[in-house]
Amino acid sequence: MVKRHAFKIGLIGSFTLSAFAHYSGLLSPIVQFAISCVAIVFVAGFLGKATESVAHYAGERLGGFLNATFGNAAELIIAIFLVKDGLFDIVKASITGSIIGNLLLVLGLSVLLGGLRFKEQHFNVKLASHNGSLMLLAVITLFIPAAFVGSLTDGETFNLSLFVAVILIVAYLLWLLFSMVTHKKELSDPIVEHGEPAWSKRLSIVFLILATSMVAVQSEWLVSTLEVFSHQFGLSELFVGAFLIAIVGNAAEHSAAILLARRNKMGAAIEIAVGSSLQIALFVAPVLVIISLFFGHPMNIVFTTFELVAIGVAVIIAKSISQDGTTHWYEGVLLLVVYGILGIAFYMV
Amino acid sequence: MVKRHAFKIGLIGSFTLSAFAHYSGLLSPIVQFAISCVAIVFVAGFLGKATESVAHYAGERLGGFLNATFGNAAELIIAIFLVKDGLFDIVKASITGSIIGNLLLVLGLSVLLGGLRFKEQHFNVKLASHNGSLMLLAVITLFIPAAFVGSLTDGETFNLSLFVAVILIVAYLLWLLFSMVTHKKELSDPIVEHGEPAWSKRLSIVFLILATSMVAVQSEWLVSTLEVFSHQFGLSELFVGAFLIAIVGNAAEHSAAILLARRNKMGAAIEIAVGSSLQIALFVAPVLVIISLFFGHPMNIVFTTFELVAIGVAVIIAKSISQDGTTHWYEGVLLLVVYGILGIAFYMV
Amino acid sequence: MVKRHAFKIGLIGSFTLSAFAHYSGLLSPIVQFAISCVAIVFVAGFLGKATESVAHYAGERLGGFLNATFGNAAELIIAIFLVKDGLFDIVKASITGSIIGNLLLVLGLSVLLGGLRFKEQHFNVKLASHNGSLMLLAVITLFIPAAFVGSLTDGETFNLSLFVAVILIVAYLLWLLFSMVTHKKELSDPIVEHGEPAWSKRLSIVFLILATSMVAVQSEWLVSTLEVFSHQFGLSELFVGAFLIAIVGNAAEHSAAILLARRNKMGAAIEIAVGSSLQIALFVAPVLVIISLFFGHPMNIVFTTFELVAIGVAVIIAKSISQDGTTHWYEGVLLLVVYGILGIAFYMV
Repeated sequence: MVKRHAFKIGLIGSFTLSAFAHYSGLLSPIVQFAISCVAIVFVAGFLGKATESVAHYAGERLGGFLNATFGNAAELIIAIFLVKDGLFDIVKASITGSIIGNLLLVLGLSVLLGGLRFKEQHFNVKLASHNGSLMLLAVITLFIPAAFVGSLTDGETFNLSLFVAVILIVAYLLWLLFSMVTHKKELSDPIVEHGEPAWSKRLSIVFLILATSMVAVQSEWLVSTLEVFSHQFGLSELFVGAFLIAIVGNAAEHSAAILLARRNKMGAAIEIAVGSSLQIALFVAPVLVIISLFFGHPMNIVFTTFELVAIGVAVIIAKSISQDGTTHWYEGVLLLVVYGILGIAFYMV
Repeated sequence: MVKRHAFKIGLIGSFTLSAFAHYSGLLSPIVQFAISCVAIVFVAGFLGKATESVAHYAGERLGGFLNATFGNAAELIIAIFLVKDGLFDIVKASITGSIIGNLLLVLGLSVLLGGLRFKEQHFNVKLASHNGSLMLLAVITLFIPAAFVGSLTDGETFNLSLFVAVILIVAYLLWLLFSMVTHKKELSDPIVEHGEPAWSKRLSIVFLILATSMVAVQSEWLVSTLEVFSHQFGLSELFVGAFLIAIVGNAAEHSAAILLARRNKMGAAIEIAVGSSLQIALFVAPVLVIISLFFGHPMNIVFTTFELVAIGVAVIIAKSISQDGTTHWYEGVLLLVVYGILGIAFYMV
Repeated sequence: MVKRHAFKIGLIGSFTLSAFAHYSGLLSPIVQFAISCVAIVFVAGFLGKATESVAHYAGERLGGFLNATFGNAAELIIAIFLVKDGLFDIVKASITGSIIGNLLLVLGLSVLLGGLRFKEQHFNVKLASHNGSLMLLAVITLFIPAAFVGSLTDGETFNLSLFVAVILIVAYLLWLLFSMVTHKKELSDPIVEHGEPAWSKRLSIVFLILATSMVAVQSEWLVSTLEVFSHQFGLSELFVGAFLIAIVGNAAEHSAAILLARRNKMGAAIEIAVGSSLQIALFVAPVLVIISLFFGHPMNIVFTTFELVAIGVAVIIAKSISQDGTTHWYEGVLLLVVYGILGIAFYMV
């Protein structure tokens, strides 16, 4: 009860403060950026709760679909504003950052902190194996355009990107069909036991709309401070997108996964981290390519070598660690070590 | 019986038509190319039957060896004619296409179509693990010359290629020794239950010689229409070699593997797809390097980056999917998605 | 008893001869190089025995730590002399050679020779899985600086190298903590059953100091003949470092691992080969970066593409072969084939 009140105060307070900072222009860019980051964590949390509540009323199947597709709604909305402003490099950096943040930081902290409490933690290998193949697919489809781009014109590159985007979205929808309809029982692993939802059906829908709008507004404010902020600190857009934006945008996944790991539900923790990065790669990234068409300046799906190295490396080490069905604290260290080295490398570039 | 007659008519008809098209020069290149493709499917099928029949009389051990080495005889013969004409780029493209065609298209269709009939299909993990290591070896040996070629002269590159070729052939022969002699029982998995062979021993040998000659002649005709055809349609040689030639050359594997998958013999289906691509990489490719010596214009074993990316990607995703011993329809989708993306990328380059 | 005397004579004889060759300057560089190689095998063997003996008296935990960190003391000392002379290319080549020598040559010979005696050999998969993840980490951390180095200045490259080095040493120490303290029981697998140590506690310590000094002196002599020798035979420093130095420096691991494989202790053989290469990558390489600071000419941790390809390839094939918990002779052939192809490629470059 107290916790819920604290959340409400944090949400309204940070959002109001952020609005004030944005419209008054009185605060320094650093303060404004910091406030925006805090506010985005709160509004993303609000959107998460509203989605869950609507999903509860929507029934099992549609609810699962809603949860799955709205899970990264905040990242998607932030990215749409970046695409609108033509900041393609930051968009791709933040996609990269979301993937490696989930696979290395979220998973690493979960395995480490869970492993400090339990000597050995177990999970369903079958699910991990399926997710591993999907992650590989995601990496592969991001690598192929980059490998061929040197021999293509800009127009051809975009056409290839569009084709890849459509194929990925179809593959993602088929994956939902597979995991929620045809092979539901085998793989399903309850992630959170919901009690009664906090709100009535009607209120949930109102809140879902409200939360989405707040995320949208807040994302625009955040993006508007980005350039000034990164300039002032001499940070590359790559670093800001891949580390700052990504960590802020994934705050909800972090806390949820770590909490589950500490309760010895390692399977569910892995499911959140891996599932979220899969969704980014197979759904958010291609949707952004298609959306860019409507803004009149098409964005291709070609990532830089640094980004591909980072994503490839993250997938390989996460796959290797999750394939034997058990985790120990040291495997968390390994994931965090790779994240740290990537972080310093991105910072330096 | 009806089926056998239909095959006989198709074989003789398409071959005669193809001969007419070739020598008269009356038909347009497109029609000529189409007829050649149909005819090559039939003569390759004939060669397959003759090989099996001879193998039956040759006894288990020698027969297995014959089946294994003649399995890709059609591809080998087509490629020899390409090597003779100095069309090295198409040779390598068709090797690439054979490998990815088997691992992605044949395997993908088998897993998808088998999976639509059976909810879950199982196979012997041990065999898959061995094949996986061999596939890795094949990829690795194709990558190494490409990685080093930038610092070598043409002569050194060919020497390295020759050395790699000899080592690969030795490795392949040792693999036959391993899988057919020293560790036969554990791994063997009967792919087809043969009834009585259709022909007498003498007739089988005659037919083997006849079929080989027909494949040789037909291959030469096909190759002679290739350049005109690809020019006319504005297709790159890479695309023609890697997709058209490869699909035609592997038609037999396609039908056999899919049939087995539909009968719930997924292990045998995988064995055909993976075994065929292994043979291409570890036996056909090195043999072509050695054969090129006799034509006076040595061909090296260095593949382009695109080809290496395609092969690497195909092996990684096929290995990932086959390593847990079960398949579902969705894994077939994944394989086909990667094949589709590679196809469009090769088409665009 | 006889064996021990033969070793003593070999040690003193080769060391004296090597000293004579070095100081007299009478012998040709080839003879001098050959003598140095023989002598280094003997002094490295002496250092190994002394370490074991001291470890015996130091108690289980400290002893394990000593064995683990002194296991590659000879390589480390040779490398330090190379760093002192600024021969960074040979240092990195010898690190590469040590890693691939252990993973391909030592492991390959063990699996092949063990497999010729026993049809199938088994080992603990869990340990292999842990080691596999660590090997991946090692490869990844060597790849990251190389991927980013194109966009960095020399100073930044060294800073990144230093950062990576410190992180790797911390990760290595945490690995010792994990495998020797928090998760000891599960993973431990006694490698050698020691009888009574040959020497008293005091003598062991004296011998450890003496052996270390002899290795140091002998390494300096070996390094001093290197350049003349490789020049005379037209060998690249890459080849000399990666193959000659590495084979000589790992002679002890070779004999120990093969002996264990022939006694059907495949787990222990793998442990030696993989453990040694892990130590090189995660401990020796970063320590050398830090040591280079004290010599006033900082060495970065950026490897050439050839070296990275070699290391990556070795790790991938070794990981693939060791992940199913059984080995056959043919898997040894695969490892040796990759080693052979890398060898010829390095020789040619």
